[in-house]
Amino acid sequence: MYFVTGNEHKLREASGILAPYGIRVVRLYERKLEVQSDSLEEIARIAAESIERKDILFFVEDAGLFIRALNGFPGPYSSYVYKTIGLEGVLKLMKGVTDRSAVFRSVVALNVPRVGIKIFTGEVHGTIAEDIRGTHGFGFDPIFIPSGSNRTFAEMTPYEKNKVSHRAISLTKMAEWLISNSQQQ
Amino acid sequence: MYFVTGNEHKLREASGILAPYGIRVVRLYERKLEVQSDSLEEIARIAAESIERKDILFFVEDAGLFIRALNGFPGPYSSYVYKTIGLEGVLKLMKGVTDRSAVFRSVVALNVPRVGIKIFTGEVHGTIAEDIRGTHGFGFDPIFIPSGSNRTFAEMTPYEKNKVSHRAISLTKMAEWLISNSQQQ
Repeated sequence: MYFVTGNEHKLREASGILAPYGIRVVRLYERKLEVQSDSLEEIARIAAESIERKDILFFVEDAGLFIRALNGFPGPYSSYVYKTIGLEGVLKLMKGVTDRSAVFRSVVALNVPRVGIKIFTGEVHGTIAEDIRGTHGFGFDPIFIPSGSNRTFAEMTPYEKNKVSHRAISLTKMAEWLISNSQQQ
Repeated sequence: MYFVTGNEHKLREASGILAPYGIRVVRLYERKLEVQSDSLEEIARIAAESIERKDILFFVEDAGLFIRALNGFPGPYSSYVYKTIGLEGVLKLMKGVTDRSAVFRSVVALNVPRVGIKIFTGEVHGTIAEDIRGTHGFGFDPIFIPSGSNRTFAEMTPYEKNKVSHRAISLTKMAEWLISNSQQQ
């Protein structure tokens, strides 16, 4: 099935997460509309709606890191924040901050021909690390430690991250919906 | 003429800037599309294009503070950054940073019936203050000192800010275009 994304890392993660369900992910090059919104769900839904080819099964995904002490920053603008102030900038903002709790959220918007858009969400609670750790993954992975672990996402292998990540949760929900739905037909 | 905005402060500033040109600004409540983009011009243009009532003269405006040492952050996402990490957050990011230069940019997209969208830009260079100063204005005004002044935008009266601001420059260009264009007809 098709994944409309400009992000190589996301494509690789989605392939790894969906392969056990027998779903092969193919990248689709389509322009999509990305709106400014505090809601990842709204961003993903409008992006999916903006893609003209409604006759094929495809999905888009939007994700963000929401840090409690920073009122949800960087949230939906995580990729812009990553490429401007970077990991160092976020750690500087968190310097001396006691409440380091954060949530990584993922929203998948799936286009089902003749049905419409279905939304699947995933989130992982965790904390912001004191320093940059690990080389795997991408984006804010080197500073996010999921609850129940003492390693950052970037210190996990792709296989390990794909078992617990926000993106694994949203995409697994999508896979299960697709499977149960195809059995009904 | 009509200004499509959800920002009371911008409405007041635009009124003050355009009054000397005999232009009365009226707020128009229309939903507009705000896309994610590194370009203010693209954001303003798409917002203007998204408004259905193309039969009336209206404008939209988008602005942002671009800090050099932070690779342009907060840029097009200034209002989101303001409401999450705030002035204190930006000052914390700038702690110990020597290069404090920044630019405030404004882009106006004017819809002219039967003509299309015209773009007018304005920018003011300056520096980021060491601390929060002044009570006038809004947004990042209390930490921005325009070149040639020793006061922040928030330490200036609205009248003073409206003589030198990025928004004054873009809106004045629009006013002059409107006047010279109406004389030709």
